[in-house]
Amino acid sequence: MHLTLIGIGTGNPEHLTLQAIRAMNAQDLILIPNKGAGKDDLAQLRRDICDEVITNAETRIAEFELPVRDPSTPDYRKRVDDWHDAIAEVWQAEIDAHGTSKKVALLVWGDPSLYDSTLRIAARLDPAPKIEVIPGITSLQALTAAHATVLNEIGAPFIVTTGRRLRDEGWPSGVDTVAIMLDAGGSFDAINPTGVHIWWGAYVGMKEETIIQGPLSDVAEQINTTREELRADHGWIMDIYLLRKS
Amino acid sequence: MHLTLIGIGTGNPEHLTLQAIRAMNAQDLILIPNKGAGKDDLAQLRRDICDEVITNAETRIAEFELPVRDPSTPDYRKRVDDWHDAIAEVWQAEIDAHGTSKKVALLVWGDPSLYDSTLRIAARLDPAPKIEVIPGITSLQALTAAHATVLNEIGAPFIVTTGRRLRDEGWPSGVDTVAIMLDAGGSFDAINPTGVHIWWGAYVGMKEETIIQGPLSDVAEQINTTREELRADHGWIMDIYLLRKS
Repeated sequence: MHLTLIGIGTGNPEHLTLQAIRAMNAQDLILIPNKGAGKDDLAQLRRDICDEVITNAETRIAEFELPVRDPSTPDYRKRVDDWHDAIAEVWQAEIDAHGTSKKVALLVWGDPSLYDSTLRIAARLDPAPKIEVIPGITSLQALTAAHATVLNEIGAPFIVTTGRRLRDEGWPSGVDTVAIMLDAGGSFDAINPTGVHIWWGAYVGMKEETIIQGPLSDVAEQINTTREELRADHGWIMDIYLLRKS
Repeated sequence: MHLTLIGIGTGNPEHLTLQAIRAMNAQDLILIPNKGAGKDDLAQLRRDICDEVITNAETRIAEFELPVRDPSTPDYRKRVDDWHDAIAEVWQAEIDAHGTSKKVALLVWGDPSLYDSTLRIAARLDPAPKIEVIPGITSLQALTAAHATVLNEIGAPFIVTTGRRLRDEGWPSGVDTVAIMLDAGGSFDAINPTGVHIWWGAYVGMKEETIIQGPLSDVAEQINTTREELRADHGWIMDIYLLRKS
């Protein structure tokens, strides 16, 4: 079997690359989860993207139920590993159920390389498929594009890390720029805001996109309030931000 | 004036997003440098991309001579700042020469946020244009896609930095994964290779793409040799790599 992981960007159907569109139309079977963060909104977005660009009548779309993590497993890594095992089993069952599919694809939000486990789950399939990856626009790029700002100063490094680590470990050493993903909310409150600028965005790239930027000390409260309001309105939220010390 | 910076990916015309294609067709004027890294090869790639996707007969393409850095300026930052000033002047002259262009675009390799100075140069234009950014696939994503690997381990951070810094400062603290851009060659020779895996690529995303991966101690020499051969063959090279401590 040939498995293609297709990065589809962050919810703007126009983030699709020509390469992604060609790859989608080259498949026998495309697997789409019908659950996950944002649940119905995101599943519908994936369906809309397929409807819009797939012209090959031979390409079948199959939705599958995404397993959920078992909250009774206390260890974080074991909880994630068990969950990935369960997802791989569901994929395997769907692939087997569709018989002779030689070319199978999964659509990945953003890019399969960045805070995404599709490659790790695919490595659990047996027999091991031949894997091809199609890059896609990430939320980090959608964020910087929305703010018309840059990730790095001239010749300078930046780090990409998680909200949990910023909260637990503070500002990473050796860098003036930090991009934060997977923040459960307001982890920037844990750092000293003096001299720090923030570029924040929720639903970046999507029609619901909301952005705020400014000195962290001035806008932190506004971001936290906006985040709670958006989450209440939509029932879910995905946000991301860039911090830079001047 | 409305200035759009359009990320066009890393040399594979299929890296173009639908958003980039739509933006290119919405312009009065697209400015293309006819010099730079890879000189003729890359200028021709930009022309080919324009030929392939621009269907709006009103969109004009103007090539401009990219100024060169003045090697007699000893200070690195001043040399770069002077160069950016000179590029902004050339853009301004081209825009003025084309009269009433209200919508002007620049095509940017990769993404305008990542190790690219187009946004900094655009900020020098007077009067200040309204700036819009269209994200594009970066060489970092083309690299990980080519190797079918990930940037980060589960919940773990990574740093993006330059070859010069790796050579001068060693392995950055607090991370097991380091992505290196702008390496003038073999900066990984400066670190202890024990337990380090490298995923290397030259011309990633282009038809000349060449990749090598393995334990750094096993493949460092092969990479250095391959890099020199490729540079001799093509007259120029662009490469990038990911290092991870296991």
